[in-house]
Amino acid sequence: MKIERISRTLIHKGSIIDYYQDEMRIPNGNTAKWDLIDHRGAAACVAVRDDGKLVMVRQYRNALERETLEIPAGGLNKGEEKDTMSAAIRELREETGYVAKEVEPLLSIYTTVAFCNEKIDIYLAKGLERGSQDLDEDEFVDVEYYELNELLKMINEGKIMDSKTICGIQQYALYLKTRYAYK
Amino acid sequence: MKIERISRTLIHKGSIIDYYQDEMRIPNGNTAKWDLIDHRGAAACVAVRDDGKLVMVRQYRNALERETLEIPAGGLNKGEEKDTMSAAIRELREETGYVAKEVEPLLSIYTTVAFCNEKIDIYLAKGLERGSQDLDEDEFVDVEYYELNELLKMINEGKIMDSKTICGIQQYALYLKTRYAYK
Repeated sequence: MKIERISRTLIHKGSIIDYYQDEMRIPNGNTAKWDLIDHRGAAACVAVRDDGKLVMVRQYRNALERETLEIPAGGLNKGEEKDTMSAAIRELREETGYVAKEVEPLLSIYTTVAFCNEKIDIYLAKGLERGSQDLDEDEFVDVEYYELNELLKMINEGKIMDSKTICGIQQYALYLKTRYAYK
Repeated sequence: MKIERISRTLIHKGSIIDYYQDEMRIPNGNTAKWDLIDHRGAAACVAVRDDGKLVMVRQYRNALERETLEIPAGGLNKGEEKDTMSAAIRELREETGYVAKEVEPLLSIYTTVAFCNEKIDIYLAKGLERGSQDLDEDEFVDVEYYELNELLKMINEGKIMDSKTICGIQQYALYLKTRYAYK
């Protein structure tokens, strides 16, 4: 016997997410109420300058009530689901001013599968040329530059805790060390 | 001028999350409505058997409408916030039957900082002894075993996309390769 959804009820439409309550039939025959957060998805970049330094953004995060250091990223606009690479390039330019000439897929993640369908496609961006920032009205971002080994150390020390940032940086580190071993 | 919260309104209390709407004062003086999902947090294990294989769980995820392969993990019970290592050991035993005798912190992540405060503390569990599963009523989990290199390949190929799982496995891989380089 499988898990089946009996019904889905919209509880609230938020600004970047919608909240649903699902009633589920579970394999023992009982029913259960499960939360679902619907999110359109996001795109992010591990952006590496020609000097090897990674372009990072520092911003205030209301959910944590403090600033965090992250890779450049942003939510998809309507219709961008089919071309998340362009969304990643757009977000990199808006948040940091850098225009990327070489972009390739690095990995994709689901942020928190127990209750949310948010997917983030993470790209490796190189061939960076400096332009100017172009932030949303409620977006306030400082741009900073780090060596890969500094960032790995900060992950190890708990100074970077954002999941998309950790996945992107670690994948890039493993890509440099072992890419050809996988193929 | 800083970002300030003017008010926080509870929209809905869910089964594992609560949904709030925050009204914010942003630096240009305007106000904005931001979503906040409140989650108690979770604990997870990268569990390595004496033969080197990692203990993984496969389960149906309603948010993705399919099965996923993940490291053993679970939400914190009330009061477990101060001792997430015990919660990780408990979840490993409940989901897989394995009792871990050697456990150390590996890393901690925030799953999706743009709208959620969920933190997952991930531990490295070794010295595993087989016991029996003890699942929640609405939890249905298959246990599988993989070599580390197989899992890194699956991350690379997009067959593993869960963020806590990627962070935990990559951190373990980097720990094995480079732990002493960080110190």
